[in-house]
Amino acid sequence: MTDMQKLGERAKQASYTLAAANAGLKNTALYAIGTQLTKRCDEIIAANAEDIVAARENGMSDAMIDRLTLTKERLNGIVSAVNSVAMMDDPVGEVLGGATRPNGIRIVKTRVPMGVIGIIFEARPNVTVDAAALCLKSGNACILRGGKEAIYSNTALANIMRDAIAQAGLPADCILLVEDTSRESANEMMRLSGYLDVLIPRGGAGLIRAVVQNATVPVIETGTGNCHVYVDYNADLTMATDIIVNAKTQRPSVCNAAETLLVHKDIAEKFLPQAAQALAKKHVKLLGCERTRAILKGVAPATQEDYATEFLDYILAVRVVDNVDDAIAHITRYSTRHSECIVTRDYENSQKFMQRVDAAAVYVNASTRFTDGGEFGFGAEIGISTQKLHARGPMGLREMTTYKYLVYGEGQIR
Amino acid sequence: MTDMQKLGERAKQASYTLAAANAGLKNTALYAIGTQLTKRCDEIIAANAEDIVAARENGMSDAMIDRLTLTKERLNGIVSAVNSVAMMDDPVGEVLGGATRPNGIRIVKTRVPMGVIGIIFEARPNVTVDAAALCLKSGNACILRGGKEAIYSNTALANIMRDAIAQAGLPADCILLVEDTSRESANEMMRLSGYLDVLIPRGGAGLIRAVVQNATVPVIETGTGNCHVYVDYNADLTMATDIIVNAKTQRPSVCNAAETLLVHKDIAEKFLPQAAQALAKKHVKLLGCERTRAILKGVAPATQEDYATEFLDYILAVRVVDNVDDAIAHITRYSTRHSECIVTRDYENSQKFMQRVDAAAVYVNASTRFTDGGEFGFGAEIGISTQKLHARGPMGLREMTTYKYLVYGEGQIR
Repeated sequence: MTDMQKLGERAKQASYTLAAANAGLKNTALYAIGTQLTKRCDEIIAANAEDIVAARENGMSDAMIDRLTLTKERLNGIVSAVNSVAMMDDPVGEVLGGATRPNGIRIVKTRVPMGVIGIIFEARPNVTVDAAALCLKSGNACILRGGKEAIYSNTALANIMRDAIAQAGLPADCILLVEDTSRESANEMMRLSGYLDVLIPRGGAGLIRAVVQNATVPVIETGTGNCHVYVDYNADLTMATDIIVNAKTQRPSVCNAAETLLVHKDIAEKFLPQAAQALAKKHVKLLGCERTRAILKGVAPATQEDYATEFLDYILAVRVVDNVDDAIAHITRYSTRHSECIVTRDYENSQKFMQRVDAAAVYVNASTRFTDGGEFGFGAEIGISTQKLHARGPMGLREMTTYKYLVYGEGQIR
Repeated sequence: MTDMQKLGERAKQASYTLAAANAGLKNTALYAIGTQLTKRCDEIIAANAEDIVAARENGMSDAMIDRLTLTKERLNGIVSAVNSVAMMDDPVGEVLGGATRPNGIRIVKTRVPMGVIGIIFEARPNVTVDAAALCLKSGNACILRGGKEAIYSNTALANIMRDAIAQAGLPADCILLVEDTSRESANEMMRLSGYLDVLIPRGGAGLIRAVVQNATVPVIETGTGNCHVYVDYNADLTMATDIIVNAKTQRPSVCNAAETLLVHKDIAEKFLPQAAQALAKKHVKLLGCERTRAILKGVAPATQEDYATEFLDYILAVRVVDNVDDAIAHITRYSTRHSECIVTRDYENSQKFMQRVDAAAVYVNASTRFTDGGEFGFGAEIGISTQKLHARGPMGLREMTTYKYLVYGEGQIR
């Protein structure tokens, strides 16, 4: 048995106890995590300081170091997030449907935990706590593998959480951290069949691709968003400007930010200068098609590759299209099926766009930035799925569960 | 572009039209399939005869040749199955939930087709029609890859179905058959990322394992069932005998048949001879643990491997256990999480078994043979999932869909 398989086995054993735990016990454990994180705050900040020293030695950028840094205040934020997970409804045990069949057997479809969830994630240590809390509440043991940049912080956080839940009466192994942060450990996790019920990679396109290519365990792809805003012929242009500025610039580094603006040819001449001006104020660089560049002088040309790129930056590709069908065709070709938006006053086009565009979330007259567990009312989220299997869009506690059929009989046979 | 990618692209293009088709059009197409299969029955039987000639040349067993054979009567059965799919409710467009958020955006979670479903299956040609009909009704284009044994039959069936749906007004490419039945074509399908939204292997454990090891597309594992019947200390022994005989022998070759009998030690001496006698009448061979063999003389010993084996035959492994916890531990170790049964009169044990046993379907006092789309009231099924992601247990039309969030706004931004 490899070290990773041993972790898998420990998680699996713990998962049986956790799956049978009621909400009261799980909530006690979650509040205990919050209490202990607060109490042992100095220990966490000391561990975090070691990560920061290493990061500086490795020449990490100030922005990245900022994301890595834990302060008392940030820890308070992490603790409130855990407390709010405790306050969410327990999804486990929900009855999803059922029937009494003609032969008298009674079938009850019941929500149950997945079992063991693996999560591979990158730098930020707050994810360690968030992910563990969501897994615990949904009745799942978790195996967490964070980035090497945060290994001291993550180890401290995981140990404190394990102590806290053990004190509360749950197996410490409900939360396991992979201490080996080599690429091999990630690869081994992807092939941990028989132990992991699902693997959720949280990170950049490279990580997601590696997981999809190599995993033998069931995977939920998350987080790549090449999102579009299409401005239709009769759109309210002030609304359209507000939406594209918001979708592009309110937080450009996230998956639900817009990457391409599509504009109907009949309003391009009026709308593009107005949008360009508003975007320029936010220092957005535009890349345009020929028709865009005929209207907006000095804009660099957009290549096919640009249209396929998730910039995650202050860069926006622009294209003038003939009509809503063209816009849909462009989106169908380049979209990662995350979040897509039409700005229009035309009923028929709004309906066509909603029906024809294949994405987790399709918007009429609202920013793509709303594709988010909190905004959708799910509370916290473990990620945003861009696949169609199991869960699509923001994944809250329910999306971290499966179901089983309980069948009650009196000796029925076929 | 490889031939397989070309098929993928054709399916994808067809899927956009099919996804937007209403139930009326899809049903017209399904009835047209039925009509054309009946009308062109001779053509199908002639093609099937070619498969049978080849099968005889290759020394296929009579039982297998029987499974491969199409007759007028069997074709009528296939046609009624298609007609009953047409009569089922269309799952597409169902509203699964939604909310108006505090900022006024209105979110409607709506059921939509997956897109393109790939199905790899083995000999029986009726699966070609069943699978195509279920995919069509659920709004999904399909790429079907059957076994080489049925290639003439499958080609005839697929061509007739394609003609029929084209006449009805849907793209013929909603139904595509992979004519290359080499192992390479199966492997290529498993890695057809960007075209297949899900791959469903229908076949033996070897096929499932190959798919899980090699696939880069999302997969739903189906059909391996190492199912158990546990007879508790105070079970109704007549009921227990009826259930184990039914679960083992009513159709031993299917995934919901029982493979291991677990018996509480306190009733083993009374129950085992009675069960053995009833099973002997059905020519079931027993393999037992030491305690079983002390009661039933002449029973061969069961190895750990036997307990892990899905016999799919008139063979049953038997083990005497100390109590319900031991039974659950055995099941946890060996089960493929398909269907598990307890026969008991003890309320507490029934509840414990239901809660602790991790399987798609958990039974009290009923045969495991009921884990089936028809028996569960789903109408036809595309397979029985043994994974936890997306769908668990029998998969009907609903399980062949995903959802998207439609979001209606009036210019909301974050």
